[in-house]
Amino acid sequence: MPSSPAALQFQGCRPLQQHCNSRDAVLPQKSCYSTDAVLPQQRFTAFHRLRQRPPRPPRSRSQPAARASGSPAAAPGAQAASSCSCAAARRRWRYRCRQRRKRRRARPACQPTTTPAAKAASSAQRTARGRSASSTIPAPLPSPCPAPPPASAAAGAGTAPLKAAGPGRRRVCPRHGRGGSAGTASPRGSPRHPCPLLPPLNDSAEFPRSSSHTGLCFPQDLLLAAAFVSDAQYNRNIPFKTSPEAVRLYQLYNHWMMRTATYFFIFLNLSLALFEEPAVYPLPFLATSVLEVLCLLVFLGRLTHFAKVTLHNVFWKDTKNICIMVAILLSLTDLAIYGVLRLYDVRSIRWSRIVRPIFLINFAESRQIRRAFRSIRNTLPEITYVFLLFMFSLLMFSLMALKLFGERNLQTAEGLPYFRNYLEIVFDLYVLVTTANSPDVMMPAFDFSSWYALFFIAFVIINTYIFMSLFLAVVYNNYKKHLKNEIRKLAYMKRRKMIEAFNLLKEKEGEQFVVREARWKQLVKLVAPDTSSSHRELLLRISDDEQKGFVDKKSFVQLADLLNIQVVTLKIRRHPLARWVPALYGSAPSRLLRSVVRHRAFVWTYDAIILINAIFIALDEESPYISYAEWVFLAVYVLEILLKVYTYEPREFFGKTQFWNWFDTLIIFAALTATILNATLKSTMKYNSQQILDIVFILRVLRLIRIVDSIQRFRVIMNTLINIVPTMLTFGGLTLVVYCVFAIIGMELFHGKIQYFPANSNTPHALECGNPALKDSLFARGKYCKNNFNNFASSFIVLMELTVVNQWHVFANGFANVTAQPAKLYFIAFHIVMVIIIVNIFVSFILEAFFVEYSLEKSEVETAIEQKIQELGMGVQEDELRDEQLLDNMESAEHELEGEGGTKAQSKGLLFKIASKRYRTVDALLQRMFEAEIPLEDEGPSFEEILNLSPASAVPRSPSSESAA
Amino acid sequence: MPSSPAALQFQGCRPLQQHCNSRDAVLPQKSCYSTDAVLPQQRFTAFHRLRQRPPRPPRSRSQPAARASGSPAAAPGAQAASSCSCAAARRRWRYRCRQRRKRRRARPACQPTTTPAAKAASSAQRTARGRSASSTIPAPLPSPCPAPPPASAAAGAGTAPLKAAGPGRRRVCPRHGRGGSAGTASPRGSPRHPCPLLPPLNDSAEFPRSSSHTGLCFPQDLLLAAAFVSDAQYNRNIPFKTSPEAVRLYQLYNHWMMRTATYFFIFLNLSLALFEEPAVYPLPFLATSVLEVLCLLVFLGRLTHFAKVTLHNVFWKDTKNICIMVAILLSLTDLAIYGVLRLYDVRSIRWSRIVRPIFLINFAESRQIRRAFRSIRNTLPEITYVFLLFMFSLLMFSLMALKLFGERNLQTAEGLPYFRNYLEIVFDLYVLVTTANSPDVMMPAFDFSSWYALFFIAFVIINTYIFMSLFLAVVYNNYKKHLKNEIRKLAYMKRRKMIEAFNLLKEKEGEQFVVREARWKQLVKLVAPDTSSSHRELLLRISDDEQKGFVDKKSFVQLADLLNIQVVTLKIRRHPLARWVPALYGSAPSRLLRSVVRHRAFVWTYDAIILINAIFIALDEESPYISYAEWVFLAVYVLEILLKVYTYEPREFFGKTQFWNWFDTLIIFAALTATILNATLKSTMKYNSQQILDIVFILRVLRLIRIVDSIQRFRVIMNTLINIVPTMLTFGGLTLVVYCVFAIIGMELFHGKIQYFPANSNTPHALECGNPALKDSLFARGKYCKNNFNNFASSFIVLMELTVVNQWHVFANGFANVTAQPAKLYFIAFHIVMVIIIVNIFVSFILEAFFVEYSLEKSEVETAIEQKIQELGMGVQEDELRDEQLLDNMESAEHELEGEGGTKAQSKGLLFKIASKRYRTVDALLQRMFEAEIPLEDEGPSFEEILNLSPASAVPRSPSSESAA
Repeated sequence: MPSSPAALQFQGCRPLQQHCNSRDAVLPQKSCYSTDAVLPQQRFTAFHRLRQRPPRPPRSRSQPAARASGSPAAAPGAQAASSCSCAAARRRWRYRCRQRRKRRRARPACQPTTTPAAKAASSAQRTARGRSASSTIPAPLPSPCPAPPPASAAAGAGTAPLKAAGPGRRRVCPRHGRGGSAGTASPRGSPRHPCPLLPPLNDSAEFPRSSSHTGLCFPQDLLLAAAFVSDAQYNRNIPFKTSPEAVRLYQLYNHWMMRTATYFFIFLNLSLALFEEPAVYPLPFLATSVLEVLCLLVFLGRLTHFAKVTLHNVFWKDTKNICIMVAILLSLTDLAIYGVLRLYDVRSIRWSRIVRPIFLINFAESRQIRRAFRSIRNTLPEITYVFLLFMFSLLMFSLMALKLFGERNLQTAEGLPYFRNYLEIVFDLYVLVTTANSPDVMMPAFDFSSWYALFFIAFVIINTYIFMSLFLAVVYNNYKKHLKNEIRKLAYMKRRKMIEAFNLLKEKEGEQFVVREARWKQLVKLVAPDTSSSHRELLLRISDDEQKGFVDKKSFVQLADLLNIQVVTLKIRRHPLARWVPALYGSAPSRLLRSVVRHRAFVWTYDAIILINAIFIALDEESPYISYAEWVFLAVYVLEILLKVYTYEPREFFGKTQFWNWFDTLIIFAALTATILNATLKSTMKYNSQQILDIVFILRVLRLIRIVDSIQRFRVIMNTLINIVPTMLTFGGLTLVVYCVFAIIGMELFHGKIQYFPANSNTPHALECGNPALKDSLFARGKYCKNNFNNFASSFIVLMELTVVNQWHVFANGFANVTAQPAKLYFIAFHIVMVIIIVNIFVSFILEAFFVEYSLEKSEVETAIEQKIQELGMGVQEDELRDEQLLDNMESAEHELEGEGGTKAQSKGLLFKIASKRYRTVDALLQRMFEAEIPLEDEGPSFEEILNLSPASAVPRSPSSESAA
Repeated sequence: MPSSPAALQFQGCRPLQQHCNSRDAVLPQKSCYSTDAVLPQQRFTAFHRLRQRPPRPPRSRSQPAARASGSPAAAPGAQAASSCSCAAARRRWRYRCRQRRKRRRARPACQPTTTPAAKAASSAQRTARGRSASSTIPAPLPSPCPAPPPASAAAGAGTAPLKAAGPGRRRVCPRHGRGGSAGTASPRGSPRHPCPLLPPLNDSAEFPRSSSHTGLCFPQDLLLAAAFVSDAQYNRNIPFKTSPEAVRLYQLYNHWMMRTATYFFIFLNLSLALFEEPAVYPLPFLATSVLEVLCLLVFLGRLTHFAKVTLHNVFWKDTKNICIMVAILLSLTDLAIYGVLRLYDVRSIRWSRIVRPIFLINFAESRQIRRAFRSIRNTLPEITYVFLLFMFSLLMFSLMALKLFGERNLQTAEGLPYFRNYLEIVFDLYVLVTTANSPDVMMPAFDFSSWYALFFIAFVIINTYIFMSLFLAVVYNNYKKHLKNEIRKLAYMKRRKMIEAFNLLKEKEGEQFVVREARWKQLVKLVAPDTSSSHRELLLRISDDEQKGFVDKKSFVQLADLLNIQVVTLKIRRHPLARWVPALYGSAPSRLLRSVVRHRAFVWTYDAIILINAIFIALDEESPYISYAEWVFLAVYVLEILLKVYTYEPREFFGKTQFWNWFDTLIIFAALTATILNATLKSTMKYNSQQILDIVFILRVLRLIRIVDSIQRFRVIMNTLINIVPTMLTFGGLTLVVYCVFAIIGMELFHGKIQYFPANSNTPHALECGNPALKDSLFARGKYCKNNFNNFASSFIVLMELTVVNQWHVFANGFANVTAQPAKLYFIAFHIVMVIIIVNIFVSFILEAFFVEYSLEKSEVETAIEQKIQELGMGVQEDELRDEQLLDNMESAEHELEGEGGTKAQSKGLLFKIASKRYRTVDALLQRMFEAEIPLEDEGPSFEEILNLSPASAVPRSPSSESAA
């Protein structure tokens, strides 16, 4: 027992905090870290012992004070942790505890541990799960306040559940590795011992079981709980280690700076293709290779960081990580080979460039893209059968066409033989399925005999309409099925994480476990540091509806959702002018002006002005009156903005959710700048910059968009579209990946085969795109020469045109002419991947998003929040905002938030409102839709089961996986 | 009271049949019609009295016997009604009744009327509906067996409910007009009096209240019930009159001959466009106008028939009928005007031809097409907003394009000015939305500067991908919503009809109302005359699970579904050869041969042969070996069919559901015939008929399709596709309507503007399609001259090409060049109607059908049937059939159906199986899906409420419409 690293647990000292905290506690603000250097390793090794590995030796141990001053600075989001005199704190706490005990005589405030065990027994019975049976083993009870229990007994309590659970079972959820009771067992109903486990004798011998050791560990749980809540809030599913250092590393890992940096390097790596041969903007090989090595190093760093955060076996089991490592290795190898060969002037292919999109797919941030890829992978088997049937149909029709038209000596419009070669017929008919050569391919046969049209009509109905719809149906069906499953997984994960957080923070209150208010507030402050204290107070009011001073489990679990709902705090501020020049601002003309601006007619007037402006834009630019008019319009728009800023409070006017205000202002000031710049250039240098002029034109037209927001029905559609945008970025990513791969292959295959020469070029074969093989081809006749694979950017544009489908056969034939006929396969493959699969998934996504938008109104949680806001008299009707477009700050009465507890509401008036529906994402909506179906009591299946959820099993399976090794 | 026509009721004599029938009853087989000439009018006038109209005078009255012999012949489906001595029947029944009473002493068998009244009171309480309150008025009880009650009392019973109900309320459901208790009130829970009402004194005075009168009316109820059940089975929702003559007329109206004839004339009328100027096959004006008048007369006749069947107010309220009448009137007027003008050699437009599709839409048979149109109409408001927003986006982009490219002096590939005119830009960009001019429209700008590609990419993403998906989403969303609603309506209607049928036939049995077995059988025989008696027995076994001799309400309501499920009766027959030449057929070589044919390898061998055949087909035809091979293959295929027929029972081989057997046989014998014909022609006349050769080629290739059926996964997809086909015909109808309208308009606009000349023609402007305006146009260069509106058939092909979208702008420009620029509007309108709306509805339909197919397995009713079949030991596993492809009749054991009741099972062995999923339609599946949601007890909302169900009201509204006048 003494040598068992599983018992390497620090002494919990939650009892201190747990039963004696009060709303005005000062201590929780000061984080007192457990300074034991073994700690980061502890839970991890405890976990590892389960798979019978030798424990790692504890690392170097420094003195507590030195440690405390050095360690916490790295944790963002965490409260600044200052070293504190823990003994003093302990004394203070003891005093408070006594005070409190006097107040609440009814409950056994500081002797909670007997009751949890009993409770746990009953809850274990309720959940009827084998793994919670261990919790019924009565653990030796720690003394009421932080007198630690005898080490051996505590160690026994810690290891007993582990033994009962068996060695192989804990492999599933790494978070469960943190000690028996807090990890796997506790969410299942086992008691959460306030100070559950003592370090084993051999280790603890080195630490005096002093109060300074035992009294300092609680913020750790808070930090861990904050990490869980934060994960739940943002739907992160990384199984991180629960040691304090790992948690801090994990917080760093999730820091927006780190993630942004990762994305930056991913895109930098991808965009290297622009600078490498064949380059759009050539850079020397040395520069690009240094950049690439830099990117790869960053990726490696990120991966190492991840490995530090997560558990070893999880890390090595995850194909994502293996993929990244292999990709890094491949890239480096290829780079080295290419570099060496280059030194000897041997040209080789940079084949490793294809693996670059792997970084975009596989870094944990791009969950959505991976989900889309999973969706594709899941769809593949089913779509393959439909595709085979479709191919069979195509081959049959081609055979028929060969027999019907092959010997008629017909000619196409270009004078080429018509339907002679079987493979060409197959290609032509495949093109017809995509409708790209629709009447042309039919015309020769149709001219020969009208009846032959029936053949093509039958072909189009069967293959274009029925089969292509069937593809959409298969893709959509699978997408829906798997989306539901994934969302269900996410919802369960979220629930589990919240329950784990709850179990970390819970305390006994009467019959039930609760989280006390002060703790709850600390947690929220940790999770969402930039919420205002009034917002926090509002959330507390919702969670602790009856103001009992604690939050129960049911309300606690909602916290992640509560945090996800954007509550806009509208501070009722006086207009700065009203403060600076009150006399002027409050004068009669000023009031009149402001009421004019606030009037509806003001909006209508500007809508009319916009329409008139549209007409002026359409008119000829050359007339001097019109160009003067442009200045007038600009002035009118600037005036509008100034008037609005004069009337409304500027900080409200440029609030986070005031999309159109931002849009207006940016567009108009950009237009103003560009117009002035252009006029200056024109007048001074007689030079009309084309770029600036173009920007001015575009900005001028974009101004007109604002009119859409004035019409209610349009606004609804626009909101739907705006909601879809974030998830559409996923498809942007998906498309980017496919484009990158195909562009790099395309450049290798077709680079330099087709050249573009400007219209007046004297180069021979300029009209044939520099390649005599294209003489008389449709490609050359269509003047498509600039559509080539000569660099990364051109390739993207060609692929875009191929995605749009039309005339893709002209491209295919053109590039096949300059290389070889099998080159068509490249285009067919792109069509299948991009159009049949990805575009259909995109359409499925839009359909689903649209239906969700239509079917979902306000969620329950949101309704609860709004109700609470209204109850507290701090609400603003969204309708009012709609009507007025802006909150009228001056006229509304000032409400005081009468918070009873610690933080008083600001003396300024406050108003809350739920951010409008516009800012919700489809994913969140879907998740909420599914969450509504989970009963609040349901803790969901186990982690393992969640991961294995299949779309078929609508109801979570019974825990039959228990017996699995 | 005596003059009240509401009391014009014949005496019910159901008590005779109701309580005294037995399984071996002879009487029910003989239909004894109530021969009162007033009867057809009675219920109708009873209904009409409710809206205070003067009653119609009773028609001529003949003697009962004479009537009975003359009336029934017209009713198809009804049992042959022979006149019978009703007095004798009555005596016989009395005897039986007494016998029966002895047997069932426990129940008051022949005194049912007190109990129904009490029951009704309680049920009225239960349903708590005002209108059933009338039933609580205790009606004077008719004597146990058919002694009629005093007339005045009965009349009072008849009119009292009507008074209680009030005059205006019965307008709702015409079927409710049949007397107070049997009509509106009875399905709501009021008692069904066995002989509820007497004719009032003034009428009944002319008929002796003899037994011959009262004893003969029951088959009427049976007929009416059969009509209800039949309507429920086929989902017909025509509110027909319930008088016996009207019912018979109604049956005639629904006869398949009548419906086929109507369809024939509708299509004849539509196809007249082929023969009228501009004609494909010109006919003199006189011929076409005579044909048209004929068609119109037929339509008028059909409409009159409908008017006879249904109620006046229903008829005149229905917009369908008004539409048809107006269309007939318009057509006749136009025809007359055109004819007169033609006499004076004035050419005018046959504008009325556009209204012809109205007949296709509005005749009651084409419910599906009307539903599709309703779906479109319902979608319109929502789609309009999206369309407006889309147009706004288009106009904005066009404005931007004008500013960006308008003054750059760019040229298109054809050397035309590029993006100069605003309207032309709008058109070009609209075409780009449809992707039809995808890279071409971008190339000049792209050549000028690569950055301009971004403009087009943004345009395509927003307009083509997002907006077009949004259109699909809106259409699909509405389609789904309204489909659900309509299906719900249908399901409720069906339920109501079945309940009405039940109420007509029900008798008291112990505590509950039931339908006795003999009656039930008669009913089934009437509704489905061509089901075998064993099939009927099977259905009875399912409905009367415990063999109690009656069917309760719950089982009765299922009857329509039971009848709809195709149960295939597989008679175990000996092979004809086994009967004719048993020695030879049973000999060892014969057995061996048959077991070879039954072996899987046989199928595989033929699959291999088909593949080899495919290769031979692809090879050159000219080589003599190959043409010989063709004969070999034909012989091999013929041999296969012969072998199969030899092995399997021929009638089974060519069973109704053996799709592939039929397909194979037809294809191969057609190919054989055509090949022989071709060979004969070739050898004798040295003439190679192109048509026959083409047919031979096509048939040869079609043979190969059979291989699809050998692969399980393909078969599943094929079955889904085959299931979709029936409903796809709806879209065929929809498309036909749109095509007809646009073709007729197109012919008026563009007729003769573009001519097609064969390749070697010397006509001037042959290359410009006979129109110099097309010189150098893409239209002429693409050799599209044959795509013109010069006749109905060509117009259809052009419209088909426009539906496929590609190159539609070339058509639009071409036709605009030869007429005027606004002609493009015709093409844009067609694109909006056909592609944006109808194709999207088609895709929605395929998506929905596909999902339903995937999500629905066997229905409850089907499972019940299958279970019963298995219980009775008469089942065949579908899997067995799958494996063996054909039922092996000889080897399976012969099962005897041991029917206890009247009809004994045939002495031959019988096997049942549910026809495979392949033969279910999506509509039926959807309906079943919804029916599963209605509890069996729920009688659904009232008729009126059903009709007014909106998609929003998921739960049927409470009967608040009671108070409405």
